[in-house]
Amino acid sequence: EDLKKQQDVKSSDPYSSDPERHPVLRINSLKPFNAEPPAEILTDNYITPSALFFKRNHLPVPQVDPASYRLSVEGLPGGAMTLSLEDLKTKFPKHTITATLQCAGNRRAEMNKVKLVKGLNWGIAAISNASWSGAKLRDVLLAAGYGPDVAKWAHHVQFEGLDKDVTGTTYGSSIPINKAVSEEGDVLLAYEMNGETLPADHGFPVRVVVPGTVGARNVKWLGKIVVSAEESNSHWQQNDYKGFSPGTDWDTVDFKSAPAVQELPIQSAITAPADGAMVDRSEEEVTVQGYAWSGGGREVVRVDVSVDGGKTWQVAQLRTSDKGQVYEPSPPPGRAWAWKLWEVTVPIPPGAKELEIICKAVDNSYNVQPDTVAPIWNLRGVLSNAWHRVTVKVREDEDEE
Amino acid sequence: EDLKKQQDVKSSDPYSSDPERHPVLRINSLKPFNAEPPAEILTDNYITPSALFFKRNHLPVPQVDPASYRLSVEGLPGGAMTLSLEDLKTKFPKHTITATLQCAGNRRAEMNKVKLVKGLNWGIAAISNASWSGAKLRDVLLAAGYGPDVAKWAHHVQFEGLDKDVTGTTYGSSIPINKAVSEEGDVLLAYEMNGETLPADHGFPVRVVVPGTVGARNVKWLGKIVVSAEESNSHWQQNDYKGFSPGTDWDTVDFKSAPAVQELPIQSAITAPADGAMVDRSEEEVTVQGYAWSGGGREVVRVDVSVDGGKTWQVAQLRTSDKGQVYEPSPPPGRAWAWKLWEVTVPIPPGAKELEIICKAVDNSYNVQPDTVAPIWNLRGVLSNAWHRVTVKVREDEDEE
Ligand SMILES: [Mo]
Ligand SMILES: [Mo]
Repeated sequence: EDLKKQQDVKSSDPYSSDPERHPVLRINSLKPFNAEPPAEILTDNYITPSALFFKRNHLPVPQVDPASYRLSVEGLPGGAMTLSLEDLKTKFPKHTITATLQCAGNRRAEMNKVKLVKGLNWGIAAISNASWSGAKLRDVLLAAGYGPDVAKWAHHVQFEGLDKDVTGTTYGSSIPINKAVSEEGDVLLAYEMNGETLPADHGFPVRVVVPGTVGARNVKWLGKIVVSAEESNSHWQQNDYKGFSPGTDWDTVDFKSAPAVQELPIQSAITAPADGAMVDRSEEEVTVQGYAWSGGGREVVRVDVSVDGGKTWQVAQLRTSDKGQVYEPSPPPGRAWAWKLWEVTVPIPPGAKELEIICKAVDNSYNVQPDTVAPIWNLRGVLSNAWHRVTVKVREDEDEE
Repeated sequence: EDLKKQQDVKSSDPYSSDPERHPVLRINSLKPFNAEPPAEILTDNYITPSALFFKRNHLPVPQVDPASYRLSVEGLPGGAMTLSLEDLKTKFPKHTITATLQCAGNRRAEMNKVKLVKGLNWGIAAISNASWSGAKLRDVLLAAGYGPDVAKWAHHVQFEGLDKDVTGTTYGSSIPINKAVSEEGDVLLAYEMNGETLPADHGFPVRVVVPGTVGARNVKWLGKIVVSAEESNSHWQQNDYKGFSPGTDWDTVDFKSAPAVQELPIQSAITAPADGAMVDRSEEEVTVQGYAWSGGGREVVRVDVSVDGGKTWQVAQLRTSDKGQVYEPSPPPGRAWAWKLWEVTVPIPPGAKELEIICKAVDNSYNVQPDTVAPIWNLRGVLSNAWHRVTVKVREDEDEE
């Protein structure tokens, strides 16, 4: 009877069918599940293994039967088009794109140190890079009747997930129509991640991948696509995922006054050494590593690193593949969807007992990261892209002391 | 005889036929002519009058006879196409675009205060906004034979000016092909500025207007267009107008290591009050005004203003027309080519003897300006877009003293 009770409790928990997760993940919230890989292993791989890829769920993971799965495409002349998973896989060319996804709240912890914000306390690893395969949204919209007449009134493509809360409200968001239909937008309806079936936590059987655009628009467990004159009216499009002035608080905020976050700004962070680590004076040098990425397909062109709190700067080496692998050719302009990993080895300054290590990146529009967190602080704790800083202690060689 | 000598000297001066200029302009260099309007009048008009629009010439102004003027379009299958001014005006639809142009060196004076750089000492007014009319470059390239086959190998469109130095070297630069041929790129071969014939200083009879892109690519006195697999090999494309790390000096710089500046980053500056001005305590408030703009068609969505050195921030009112005029509808996403003017009235903080006034802008990719100049300092003094700061003194009411 105890067992029965337990099962009842379990089955009334909408999160009871959530998948297993990798034990190394750092959990920010269990229900819904939100977790990031440890920063110290984030840049071990150019392509983040799916099990380590950050998880950002707003609701319970829905269980979707791939055989009965249907995707509905609405809002176009001629009525709704319904596609099975098989249709998506066989009726449209399969494209593979390497794209970095980043949560709007990545590095929120640094904003919380300035003043508490509302949101999950993400560290620097709510960002990961994967290879995604699927049909192009553009191809599906064209097949469903998108054309010049629709272009006259359509401004947005809305996405609805199959994940829902207890009231039946589903997750949803939208992107601008030009991103959705442009040949260069590379928006995918992805059914594979890193060459395998999309994992449950990443949207099985189909998710949207909107390269260069904030994670929140990359809707998972995709159930419906709607072409519309309007943005999604979901909470997450209208009253969340927007940036505000540091002086705006919950009493004064007008969510209508700011645009929904779409393309993200230039970002970078240090994954090694860790904050608070020790470096040995006898090593003479310290090797600093990290990631850099920018939204909107803007390519990272430089990462500057300082080990003296910003007084002097060294230029890091960038790479777009795992070490020892052949470098990928540069993506076409405006389609740099994947992060760059970087590394630089810098002499330990003589006499320094502590090093303040800083990184800052530049993209090919020469946008840069701001110096400090407080002036970009916002009540929702999004868009946290100030210079990343870690402090390490220099351990003097014992013989010398 | 003295007169004759004088005329000989004059005619041997390649700048002798340069046009008259407005006396209010602040001259940074006379030959070639480089000048900006006084900052205090820059934002008096949403559309900058042509006579006040900043002038940035690299070479003498060429004298071009509009009747014999020919534009050559090269590099496409079928050989060169030659167009007269009449051809440009009659064979292609006329389009009008309001676009802000900014010199790469705008606000270089602030970099010079950190450490001397090479270049003209521009203040904050090497930026202006005009309405441009002409043929779309896209239409001309399509007429000249651009198509899917060319798209396979063509990566750049090069421009050559008719202005030349004593050795015959002409001004030149290039832009990425996708900007040139995209319907949304809005690149013009402009023959009118603010509804009138293009003035001599702005490229009569034809200039390129590349909205969202650094001034240097908006080639004036356009003589030749070349579709190519390569960027322009001109000095200004290859060895100038690029950004570098603050640690890079003239001994270590490798111009090949940085991309040519194309889209510019988010920018804003304060045009009133002027640095060093007085405000009266009895006024109780101070009104701060300025401009904000971002490259790549990214729309300015917010300007934050502080009168206490960055401790607290107020959100400014933005406008896209002259005061009292009807606001223009928002441009389509990615095509916000024109600046926004802004204004905010802030209480004078009690007890303050001096106000450090700061502005910083945000665009719709949520890119922001960096806090300080030194970390973006670069040897050529380009891309100077840190927070703009002015200091004003508060004059106490005499009765109160
Ligand atoms: Mo997110
Ligand atoms: Mo310039």
